[in-house]
Amino acid sequence: MTADTPANVRPVLIAGQWRVAKSSTTFQATDPNKNTKLAAEFPVSSWDDCDEALNAAADAARQLRKMPPSKIAAFLERYADRIDAAKETLVESAFAETGLAKSPRLGDVELPRTSNQLRAAAKACRTGNWAMATIDTAAGIRSVFEPLGPVCVFGPNNFPFAFNSVAGGDFAAAIAAGNPVIAKANSSHPETTRLLAEQAAEALAETGLPPATVQLIYRTSHADGECLVSDPRVGATGYTGSRGAGLTLKSAADRAGKPIYLELSSVNPVVITPAALAEKGEAIVGDFVTSVLMGTGQFCTNPGMVMLVGGAETDTFIAAVKDKFASLPAGTLLSPAVAKSLSSSVKTLCDFGADLLTGGGEPEAGRCAYANTLMKTSAKAFLGNPEGFQTEAFGNASLFVVANDVPQLCEAIGHLEGNLTGCVYTANNGSDDDAYASISFELSPKVGRLLNDKMPTGVAVSAAMNHGGPYPATGHPGFTAVGVPASLVRFGKLTSFDNVRADRLPEILKDKNPTGETWRMIDGKWSTSNV
Amino acid sequence: MTADTPANVRPVLIAGQWRVAKSSTTFQATDPNKNTKLAAEFPVSSWDDCDEALNAAADAARQLRKMPPSKIAAFLERYADRIDAAKETLVESAFAETGLAKSPRLGDVELPRTSNQLRAAAKACRTGNWAMATIDTAAGIRSVFEPLGPVCVFGPNNFPFAFNSVAGGDFAAAIAAGNPVIAKANSSHPETTRLLAEQAAEALAETGLPPATVQLIYRTSHADGECLVSDPRVGATGYTGSRGAGLTLKSAADRAGKPIYLELSSVNPVVITPAALAEKGEAIVGDFVTSVLMGTGQFCTNPGMVMLVGGAETDTFIAAVKDKFASLPAGTLLSPAVAKSLSSSVKTLCDFGADLLTGGGEPEAGRCAYANTLMKTSAKAFLGNPEGFQTEAFGNASLFVVANDVPQLCEAIGHLEGNLTGCVYTANNGSDDDAYASISFELSPKVGRLLNDKMPTGVAVSAAMNHGGPYPATGHPGFTAVGVPASLVRFGKLTSFDNVRADRLPEILKDKNPTGETWRMIDGKWSTSNV
Repeated sequence: MTADTPANVRPVLIAGQWRVAKSSTTFQATDPNKNTKLAAEFPVSSWDDCDEALNAAADAARQLRKMPPSKIAAFLERYADRIDAAKETLVESAFAETGLAKSPRLGDVELPRTSNQLRAAAKACRTGNWAMATIDTAAGIRSVFEPLGPVCVFGPNNFPFAFNSVAGGDFAAAIAAGNPVIAKANSSHPETTRLLAEQAAEALAETGLPPATVQLIYRTSHADGECLVSDPRVGATGYTGSRGAGLTLKSAADRAGKPIYLELSSVNPVVITPAALAEKGEAIVGDFVTSVLMGTGQFCTNPGMVMLVGGAETDTFIAAVKDKFASLPAGTLLSPAVAKSLSSSVKTLCDFGADLLTGGGEPEAGRCAYANTLMKTSAKAFLGNPEGFQTEAFGNASLFVVANDVPQLCEAIGHLEGNLTGCVYTANNGSDDDAYASISFELSPKVGRLLNDKMPTGVAVSAAMNHGGPYPATGHPGFTAVGVPASLVRFGKLTSFDNVRADRLPEILKDKNPTGETWRMIDGKWSTSNV
Repeated sequence: MTADTPANVRPVLIAGQWRVAKSSTTFQATDPNKNTKLAAEFPVSSWDDCDEALNAAADAARQLRKMPPSKIAAFLERYADRIDAAKETLVESAFAETGLAKSPRLGDVELPRTSNQLRAAAKACRTGNWAMATIDTAAGIRSVFEPLGPVCVFGPNNFPFAFNSVAGGDFAAAIAAGNPVIAKANSSHPETTRLLAEQAAEALAETGLPPATVQLIYRTSHADGECLVSDPRVGATGYTGSRGAGLTLKSAADRAGKPIYLELSSVNPVVITPAALAEKGEAIVGDFVTSVLMGTGQFCTNPGMVMLVGGAETDTFIAAVKDKFASLPAGTLLSPAVAKSLSSSVKTLCDFGADLLTGGGEPEAGRCAYANTLMKTSAKAFLGNPEGFQTEAFGNASLFVVANDVPQLCEAIGHLEGNLTGCVYTANNGSDDDAYASISFELSPKVGRLLNDKMPTGVAVSAAMNHGGPYPATGHPGFTAVGVPASLVRFGKLTSFDNVRADRLPEILKDKNPTGETWRMIDGKWSTSNV
């Protein structure tokens, strides 16, 4: 910034200093409830900022490698406590920037989830249970996942806390695995991100970690973003967001041989059998409407496609959902861009031949909003253009795909792209278990998480969670972005120690169990004992 | 092939049939001991062959998903027994095509290793211990790695059995994870590969697996290879070979979002301190010479670079190694291409300024061979052109890099690319433990396997082995190509089952432990018990 930088341009956090960015342009976030720009200006960093952050991160990575995991865990816990303590300010800021409800969503659900996720990551860090320590005493070889190096985190617009680049799942996993993070704020909630980073910086100082363990820039040019993820100083990148931007970054990272973990678009198909509707149709209507309209449908796992078999039950179901969609008020969307993109996707789907049952049209003018929207097409039409009909309409919209029978339904499922989730509702009485077998056989390979009798929104922080899925839902079908300890492994490098002298092994691989509760695979058996 | 296909053109194995390839050209392997073409001709398959193989593999993958792991394990075991029984024929063929010694190398080391690797994979398949079954009873979520889909395997030239695309580590891992394999033979030993595939086909029939579980083509155009690894019907690819061809395939697979596991080049630095040389220099000379000249240096983990600190001990060491290299006969190389590439790499290194201590020149004429070659440069020169001096000279050659002191040595190590291995020799008496700390701190992040007082050749099949490493040694620092069960995870897809009814869960995730010995993470604890 030049000397005439306005006082309200926010500083970046680089190498432990909140300083004026090296930047020539700024941006502002929008209050989606008013569709007006918020006052604070944020810098678009030049490569100089990125370069300094990378150097500082590389230094921090070296320092972190020498520190015991307990020290890193203490930081994560202190940061979690600070987030809880700063709840009021954080929630006000997130509300202003995203329009999401202060209660229960932001204050009572997402913020506690975020601090608890940091605590869960701290625990995995302290025990080392993410690192898969493996000991082969006969061969004299021991292996463990170690930190990979500085991690760039690009957070999405839809979770200002739980997936925030400076506090969310990727952040927690990267830090707990022993890596510094360079956070790139999402442009829709930069002030919330800055407020979180302030807490992180204080917690770093309080717990004695390298100041550059957490750094924050708000935005870069696209070209600099590509340079960032492919820089030799970077270990890996975590990205959650749109498919277009994600694939551009993936291409750059791939060329440089740098791991990049992406969470891209997903339509999250929900399959509902006629027998399920006959038995419990009203409850499913309620489940579905809540799932799509909660948070105005702005979830990675929003059920954007419902696959059905034609008939009286399905007609009744569709009519009931349509009534609810038409009568319930449209929620606020995160930003003008989200409203515009939703409107555009609905138009695309209708252009491909989907019938508009309710909603559609143009975004509202006075706030970021779009009518609750339902569309419908046949499985036959879907099979004629499967890629087109899988256009993601991110927000309060969904597409019914109606098949003639279960075999056609299964054929359509066979043409799905990779998705984060897939749900199957069947009758409790077992009358359509055969249909379930066919449906799940087709659906399971397409999704990261298969659900029964339950909508996909709601991603529990569980060791068994997979918030991932085959491409293009993510970039690799073997990794999860949510769930501890598995999400940490993404940011680890496997190192084998062959004939390394006993006193030179990392603590976690020495004969003595370092914590008394660290799980290690010793000669083919998982154990918390000493060797 | 047209009707006038010569009788000695070998058939491909597609969809369970040994049939004439759809091909317009053929190739022949070379007997490296005579530098003459072997008689058998092998077809270069057209895309039609690939397309049929892909369709058959996709069908086989669906069938395999319905089979119990014990059935797949039985195939791997039967195949292993058949390989052992066919030892004589296989060893004769491999000797004719590779020039590697029949004994001990091919018959007594590599072949038993190969069959035992298949048996180890069978065991991991039977127990499911590779699949990381995770059960969270409170959340009602259970996850496990499942088969990813058909796997293409491209094997290298240097291990006709243990890394063969139709019998080696990638093959065993892919099959044990429940996937069919499309094997692409290495052009240097196609007949050995065909003989192995014959045994595989018989074993498939004997154990009742889908015939297309194992398919074999010998060669394709480069363009078809790229189409193969990026085809929608493919789950993933395993590739071991040259960096150039590997990166071309990686690029194609990356664009399609298909996982590809690569094992590319590696110079495998060996760091030796003056104190180590003072204490046990003679033994290290023996270790090093054996390691580089064994198998004529044609190992992925061949020590192609030795990093030293200048002084009397180092001069003595280099002189002793030079004497041995000059006096020992040069072994046979795998093919004319290997000899040519080695000669070219040595020239490149000398052009960059390396001094030729012994060897060099042109390949022999009457057989595939090249003089045992040693080169030397300074750490200062290395630091001026680190990329150039890391040119891999695959074969019986190595480069000494001599530093002024330990700090300069460490600076040079900091400029290494990713490698499969890194070794450090220090004194047993602990006199240079400080140097070790500095050296290993720099070296460890650069390598997949860190060794003490031991050469890197010899890759034990151990659960703690990492035959992998940071790019460009491989494409991802978190995966190993050798070692069971970890190598299987590469060919798995993580699936989470959320609220899925108990009787619909995969056997491995049901309350009852399916084998009584399957390790599962149940509510945070690894256990072989029932839930």
